[in-house]
Amino acid sequence: MSQSSPRPDGRADDQLRPMSFERDFTEMAAGSCLVTFGRTRVLCTASVGDGVPPWLRNTGRGWVTAEYSMLPGSSPERIRRRTSGRDQEIQRLIARSLRAVVDLEAMPEMELTVDCDVLQADGGTRTASICGGFVALHDAFTRLVAAGDLPASPIIEELAAISVGIVDGAPRLDLPYVEDSTAEVDFNVVMTGSGRFVEVQGTAEGQAFERSQLDALVDLATGGIADIVEAQRALLATPPAARA
Amino acid sequence: MSQSSPRPDGRADDQLRPMSFERDFTEMAAGSCLVTFGRTRVLCTASVGDGVPPWLRNTGRGWVTAEYSMLPGSSPERIRRRTSGRDQEIQRLIARSLRAVVDLEAMPEMELTVDCDVLQADGGTRTASICGGFVALHDAFTRLVAAGDLPASPIIEELAAISVGIVDGAPRLDLPYVEDSTAEVDFNVVMTGSGRFVEVQGTAEGQAFERSQLDALVDLATGGIADIVEAQRALLATPPAARA
Amino acid sequence: MSQSSPRPDGRADDQLRPMSFERDFTEMAAGSCLVTFGRTRVLCTASVGDGVPPWLRNTGRGWVTAEYSMLPGSSPERIRRRTSGRDQEIQRLIARSLRAVVDLEAMPEMELTVDCDVLQADGGTRTASICGGFVALHDAFTRLVAAGDLPASPIIEELAAISVGIVDGAPRLDLPYVEDSTAEVDFNVVMTGSGRFVEVQGTAEGQAFERSQLDALVDLATGGIADIVEAQRALLATPPAARA
Amino acid sequence: MSQSSPRPDGRADDQLRPMSFERDFTEMAAGSCLVTFGRTRVLCTASVGDGVPPWLRNTGRGWVTAEYSMLPGSSPERIRRRTSGRDQEIQRLIARSLRAVVDLEAMPEMELTVDCDVLQADGGTRTASICGGFVALHDAFTRLVAAGDLPASPIIEELAAISVGIVDGAPRLDLPYVEDSTAEVDFNVVMTGSGRFVEVQGTAEGQAFERSQLDALVDLATGGIADIVEAQRALLATPPAARA
Amino acid sequence: MSQSSPRPDGRADDQLRPMSFERDFTEMAAGSCLVTFGRTRVLCTASVGDGVPPWLRNTGRGWVTAEYSMLPGSSPERIRRRTSGRDQEIQRLIARSLRAVVDLEAMPEMELTVDCDVLQADGGTRTASICGGFVALHDAFTRLVAAGDLPASPIIEELAAISVGIVDGAPRLDLPYVEDSTAEVDFNVVMTGSGRFVEVQGTAEGQAFERSQLDALVDLATGGIADIVEAQRALLATPPAARA
Amino acid sequence: MSQSSPRPDGRADDQLRPMSFERDFTEMAAGSCLVTFGRTRVLCTASVGDGVPPWLRNTGRGWVTAEYSMLPGSSPERIRRRTSGRDQEIQRLIARSLRAVVDLEAMPEMELTVDCDVLQADGGTRTASICGGFVALHDAFTRLVAAGDLPASPIIEELAAISVGIVDGAPRLDLPYVEDSTAEVDFNVVMTGSGRFVEVQGTAEGQAFERSQLDALVDLATGGIADIVEAQRALLATPPAARA
Repeated sequence: MSQSSPRPDGRADDQLRPMSFERDFTEMAAGSCLVTFGRTRVLCTASVGDGVPPWLRNTGRGWVTAEYSMLPGSSPERIRRRTSGRDQEIQRLIARSLRAVVDLEAMPEMELTVDCDVLQADGGTRTASICGGFVALHDAFTRLVAAGDLPASPIIEELAAISVGIVDGAPRLDLPYVEDSTAEVDFNVVMTGSGRFVEVQGTAEGQAFERSQLDALVDLATGGIADIVEAQRALLATPPAARA
Repeated sequence: MSQSSPRPDGRADDQLRPMSFERDFTEMAAGSCLVTFGRTRVLCTASVGDGVPPWLRNTGRGWVTAEYSMLPGSSPERIRRRTSGRDQEIQRLIARSLRAVVDLEAMPEMELTVDCDVLQADGGTRTASICGGFVALHDAFTRLVAAGDLPASPIIEELAAISVGIVDGAPRLDLPYVEDSTAEVDFNVVMTGSGRFVEVQGTAEGQAFERSQLDALVDLATGGIADIVEAQRALLATPPAARA
Repeated sequence: MSQSSPRPDGRADDQLRPMSFERDFTEMAAGSCLVTFGRTRVLCTASVGDGVPPWLRNTGRGWVTAEYSMLPGSSPERIRRRTSGRDQEIQRLIARSLRAVVDLEAMPEMELTVDCDVLQADGGTRTASICGGFVALHDAFTRLVAAGDLPASPIIEELAAISVGIVDGAPRLDLPYVEDSTAEVDFNVVMTGSGRFVEVQGTAEGQAFERSQLDALVDLATGGIADIVEAQRALLATPPAARA
Repeated sequence: MSQSSPRPDGRADDQLRPMSFERDFTEMAAGSCLVTFGRTRVLCTASVGDGVPPWLRNTGRGWVTAEYSMLPGSSPERIRRRTSGRDQEIQRLIARSLRAVVDLEAMPEMELTVDCDVLQADGGTRTASICGGFVALHDAFTRLVAAGDLPASPIIEELAAISVGIVDGAPRLDLPYVEDSTAEVDFNVVMTGSGRFVEVQGTAEGQAFERSQLDALVDLATGGIADIVEAQRALLATPPAARA
Repeated sequence: MSQSSPRPDGRADDQLRPMSFERDFTEMAAGSCLVTFGRTRVLCTASVGDGVPPWLRNTGRGWVTAEYSMLPGSSPERIRRRTSGRDQEIQRLIARSLRAVVDLEAMPEMELTVDCDVLQADGGTRTASICGGFVALHDAFTRLVAAGDLPASPIIEELAAISVGIVDGAPRLDLPYVEDSTAEVDFNVVMTGSGRFVEVQGTAEGQAFERSQLDALVDLATGGIADIVEAQRALLATPPAARA
Repeated sequence: MSQSSPRPDGRADDQLRPMSFERDFTEMAAGSCLVTFGRTRVLCTASVGDGVPPWLRNTGRGWVTAEYSMLPGSSPERIRRRTSGRDQEIQRLIARSLRAVVDLEAMPEMELTVDCDVLQADGGTRTASICGGFVALHDAFTRLVAAGDLPASPIIEELAAISVGIVDGAPRLDLPYVEDSTAEVDFNVVMTGSGRFVEVQGTAEGQAFERSQLDALVDLATGGIADIVEAQRALLATPPAARA
């Protein structure tokens, strides 16, 4: 896509890092997925709770929420255990995104919490959390249907997300930390399986950007997300293992 | 711009609410501005502190940060005094945006804090905070130069922001609460005086949106921001009153 | 009243600073008043909440409480956003004082909160909060009666407060910061419209004081409060604007 | 002093409850005193710390501060372990009062903390804390002089405090809980050994009070405090036991 | 028991410090005991609360919990007022131990809280808290029976605790601070009146210990606890004073 | 070892669950180990920080500390993200145990933090954390030596821990949750590679226990720990992979 310098890991500018979804990496929560993009690894679990937040009581609607945290040892410099402003912003993004593909009206008054705990951080942890959190949530709903607690899964369609940015003047897909930390512009894009947008968050890191750059980055993200959705579809074509 | 239903306050879809910047509404902080967009009113002050955060010590660079809060009586339903996740997300956005138009290298090791306290909330409080916070910060830097504490103002260019959204299927500029609460898509856009982008944050409230909608909303915001920048330029052409 | 040195702003020792009550400065809360004493400015709002604190449930009585805070930019040195011990002490004083002129038995089980946010601080912020908070509370009750939510206003009489102190050996009324910070003795006095006492709080700042000084300060405050009550009566003779 | 109903414990209206100061009830802190007024018992200790608060560094002045807390089992209804607004207000009063009789300029940069822990609460805990805290602080300074850490004690004169109130229309001295909870007016008065005022805090509990009532209560407190100071003088005429 | 150096206070290695239980040291809580082991003094109170924690509601069982805190002046170096990790660990130990000798099934849904506030600390504060907390709890239950709130006391048998340790190579009973701080091994043992174990907590302070040392320490503790239980039995043979 | 009912997973009473140590499961921290005992899985990382806690500054000694947390999805019922009293107690145990096998005098003033994050909880999480934390710490020290930051590893010997308990009257080794929750007595034992004791913590869950039971449980733990140490030795005979 560009004549710029080669990427540190040799990828093409529009190529994703090696990606995997390890389903049921743990078995206590209703859904669980260890998602990997390159060296970034996030353990996502979906837990089913009693009841809903106060403002939804007696509305007959359900709720999906999310929490995000980095383990202290997930980064070369140890991270303190506290919910930072950045963590809160990310978990609000994850939760909003997941709710965009769930029909809350089709759930009874129950709350599912998707926990995204970053085991290893190398850029793109929030978008990996959305991709893996969707798998964990999907499997939790499938098991609730199997257990007779829901008539049908309220999932509407797939959900995936990716980071894109401008590095050395070139738009690049799926930035690892070494690129992310020097990017001039940084976008996180969340889209549905049908190719529509749920969130677009773009930030000028160094200097402000042009409309043409905005357009190029959105194009790049659109392509990457289509690849992720394809992988999710292949995985989810098989239902998760039955629970005792 | 559209054939949709008329807006509650009779404005055209691409028209801003009545806007004003009341400079030096208070006189204790180095810069102060009461900014008004319709019924939304935010008191922005810029205070000068000693020293910089730990990670900037001995770098010879300055810092600009921001805090955002809604007064309890700013809303029909009283708001509790606590920094919510939403508040933290907004103050991170304000601070990042302000830093985009300040040359931190051209400041000594001092920190300016821009406080944005919402006196009355009727939609668009975060974008109003950015517009008014820029004025307060600009005047604080001007006074620091006048007092001999800075050789020249590190402000690079103007900064403004606006919300846009899709209501009843039509893209609309500068949404009051009554429109914001029913918008299908909600964007906050921050741009510089020269028309480049600092932040683009778009969220699907109800259902995911198309690329064409994204494009229309960014166009609409670009026009509104140009109007705000013009008002800022007119105001700031005159320096702030001298301080004893 | 004394032969001491002239006051910094040229006032007589028994003269108030220029005072004003700007009613409905904001329009979201049930009552709102921006009160000014010299350069001290406090935005007071009265919000109506559902229900009462736990210990009043099922007693058939209402409640009035207060919160007090200084905006970070209200002072030449920026103030951190946290409720200090001083803030708590002040808000307890404001709430206790307001309740002294409200017949809580004549209210149903509802709670009104009077928020006093100091926009600019130049001495006497707690007494200004009481004077302005009374106006906001009065208007909130008037609107509750107009809306049919209360049979009659439970306000018993007016409430006002002022600071007095001994500066350079002379008793003085309504101290700005420059006098307050060097006062030898500092009193805050709260009285009703009928001239009775609600609170008397006197503190020796430098050295302990004599009974004769106590008597002179209470006399001085009594006169100042009568002037404030007169201004409140003139304002409140007209009911607040009707709300849509 | 009055024709009103007899007091629950049979005292005259101007009579103190049985009072005692048990010096060195504990032996770890530099000064310690278990003070008793009737059933109210407060353990006061004075501890010597390194250095002073940040705002006093390099001023060559010392500091005295105080903390106040009620033990959970000090009251018939268990009290939660947390610093309430009331606790903060009381500890600010205790600290301010103690500093009024200490020449901070005559101390090096050291900080003494007087902790007042209420073992049993039956009214008048804040005034008992001031009376007992003074004894603990006095002994701590005496031991610092004995140890060669101070050239001379910076204590200027004695300090004592008492509560007075109007119960059943009559002014009464030193109220136990049963009277305090029904008092119409409640005053706490702090005075020095030479009979001057440090703090006067009067509150209308039920209805506002007249100037003549204010005068009568201040007279009553003045008499009670003179009796307490006499007891303190008798005790402190003997120095505290030497420490190993 | 050993040829090692003499103990600082001249005791035999298997001898307790002078011990006392001062019943009803305070009179507000349902049970109260000031327990003394040498210079260690802990005020233990047992308060009766309404209801039980959420997880016990509607089970028909009662609950006993405990809190532990050191007063700031209890130690030569002042202790900050906050619940440290050490405090939490100790209060969990106290509560667990007390529940081991209470038949919770024989209580209605009420909660007793045993507060252990260390007035003076010289080693062994947690074991003293258990010994004195048992007395306070015992008396609180006796008074609940006397008041008709319980059919019979749910206390099963006595409870006592002691510390033992290896100092200078010798096992020693009931360590004061000067021994505790140099002990190579430190055990806290909790036992019932019938000589069975409730808790055994042993820690290598300096270097790991042998099985034979473990055995010797458990033997030593068993003997000391038997002496404490005897003292408790003598005291509790008489019921506590009746309350008005 | 006993005639009691068979164990739920068919093991002998003195048999460990299947155990594994997955070295370098993550690669950001200096040492990392995913430890497994049956279904219990804990990710342990050892991070190297700058400097030491304040009380060790300028002593020339290093420090080792630990933190313990359960991921929200590690349990069938979701766990809230907060440091409970139980968590604090456990992390104090882990840290104390690790320090028992490190020669802190042989480290410069650096601090290593061992984070133990429970990915899946099925009993014995604290003892698994100690076993896996030792491996992570060992590898971190080895890498510090390889990088020239330490002259030699300060590790003295191996460290392992296991839980034992009495279930259905029989002493059993390495309890999973289903046994742990019904155990009458619960011990956690920490020992060194040379077979000496570091910690012994025994608790009567239901009723108090006899000395003979204490002895049997300590014997059982001693055997299990020897097996774990053997596995650690086999693993650590090979140095960890070199880091770039």
